[in-house]
Amino acid sequence: MKSVVIVGSGSVAGALAVAIGNSRMRLVQIYARNHEKAERLAEECCCDHASKPSELARADVYIIAVSDKAIVKVASSLDFGSGVVAHTSGSTSIADLPAKIKEKAVFYPLQTFSQGRDVNMRDVPILIEGSSAHAVSAMREVAEAISDDVREVSSAQRARVHLSAVFVCNFANYMYTIGEELIAEAHQPFDLLKPLITETAAKAVAASSPRLVQTGPAVRNDYQTKSLHCEMLGDKPDLKNIYINLSNHIWETSKKI
Amino acid sequence: MKSVVIVGSGSVAGALAVAIGNSRMRLVQIYARNHEKAERLAEECCCDHASKPSELARADVYIIAVSDKAIVKVASSLDFGSGVVAHTSGSTSIADLPAKIKEKAVFYPLQTFSQGRDVNMRDVPILIEGSSAHAVSAMREVAEAISDDVREVSSAQRARVHLSAVFVCNFANYMYTIGEELIAEAHQPFDLLKPLITETAAKAVAASSPRLVQTGPAVRNDYQTKSLHCEMLGDKPDLKNIYINLSNHIWETSKKI
Repeated sequence: MKSVVIVGSGSVAGALAVAIGNSRMRLVQIYARNHEKAERLAEECCCDHASKPSELARADVYIIAVSDKAIVKVASSLDFGSGVVAHTSGSTSIADLPAKIKEKAVFYPLQTFSQGRDVNMRDVPILIEGSSAHAVSAMREVAEAISDDVREVSSAQRARVHLSAVFVCNFANYMYTIGEELIAEAHQPFDLLKPLITETAAKAVAASSPRLVQTGPAVRNDYQTKSLHCEMLGDKPDLKNIYINLSNHIWETSKKI
Repeated sequence: MKSVVIVGSGSVAGALAVAIGNSRMRLVQIYARNHEKAERLAEECCCDHASKPSELARADVYIIAVSDKAIVKVASSLDFGSGVVAHTSGSTSIADLPAKIKEKAVFYPLQTFSQGRDVNMRDVPILIEGSSAHAVSAMREVAEAISDDVREVSSAQRARVHLSAVFVCNFANYMYTIGEELIAEAHQPFDLLKPLITETAAKAVAASSPRLVQTGPAVRNDYQTKSLHCEMLGDKPDLKNIYINLSNHIWETSKKI
């Protein structure tokens, strides 16, 4: 059983703290510069909290769940003793952790976290990495206590996984945003698209590959519908550009199957 | 209670036939050129089937659920008597139905249908249109028998709704396909992305607007991560182009909130 301190109080820190607090690991402290948020999260997880570097508790594992930009600054400001110190970033190399940290690690949960949404952490893949066998083994022990899908991957691999995540999460969500903008012009609410969004995701998840369930005018190379769509996007050159770009790629890629 | 004939045997025809067969409407026949598929679907729905124009049954409503390209040809080849005749296409105008049809209509279910996937039709919005009050009222009666969300929209509005659907369905699925391609380069399976795909869709559906739940390097304008991603896409100019294009638009749009 490892003792764990979570550094941070945002949505990733919150989700990890709750999951670790409910696991067989021992969550000892929430450390965050924002005293109020640290206190609130610690209360939820029944553990200690701290906001000053001198108050940081001793632990086997420190998980720094702060924004990518803040990782180095926060890590440099704290004394972790001999603990294993992990960040939770998809695109930050393990080597970016300050040199003074001997046992460097990564603990990257592949999911989108937001305040107010409960995610079942057992389903969330956790990608781990460590600068030593000891660091890897500590990450594995904590990760397996909260998730059923734990994988050791290098920083280079993780960066590619994170890039994939940008497409399936951030860019997919942007497609929903464009859909909302366009349906508003038909004087219809975004709600109308919700069953379609849900079924599209469910179908891809049920498929062995999303390529096999691609539908629409692009994959059929249906010129007539595509030209009608481009006409409707005539006053939106940016969206028309995205439409043509994606339609061409769907058609090009479909031929390679 | 209206009597209904479904023309077609593809996935839209199948989903509508099953839903109408289970409703308070009277499904009298499946008509399709493919005799075997018509027979199989009719058996599933406990109704008659036919494959020759002369065998087309009399009915109050005919729903032509065939590919966009085939609508005019199929509609021209059949004698519908005084029935209301609807197509199920998102981007085809009601006026494209042959002139000989007096009671023209549209019955467009806003969903993606595929063989082997059961969709709860009560949740599926059905967009209706009719060339007369009688046609509209017939469409409304049949649509309300199978769905809780029935709306009368013009052909021009429906075309815009269909364009929105291309973004949230076809293009979102293409984002999943790109994700699969990129994660394969990290020697990881598409399965790893599935919890993220599911949660991204669920979060957008729970939100009042997907714009409000946009996350990622683009909306943060995180130069460092974006430039790392572009570097990784260096040998894939097409995907790099899509990445830059979408990232720029996300940033531009986010500033307008």
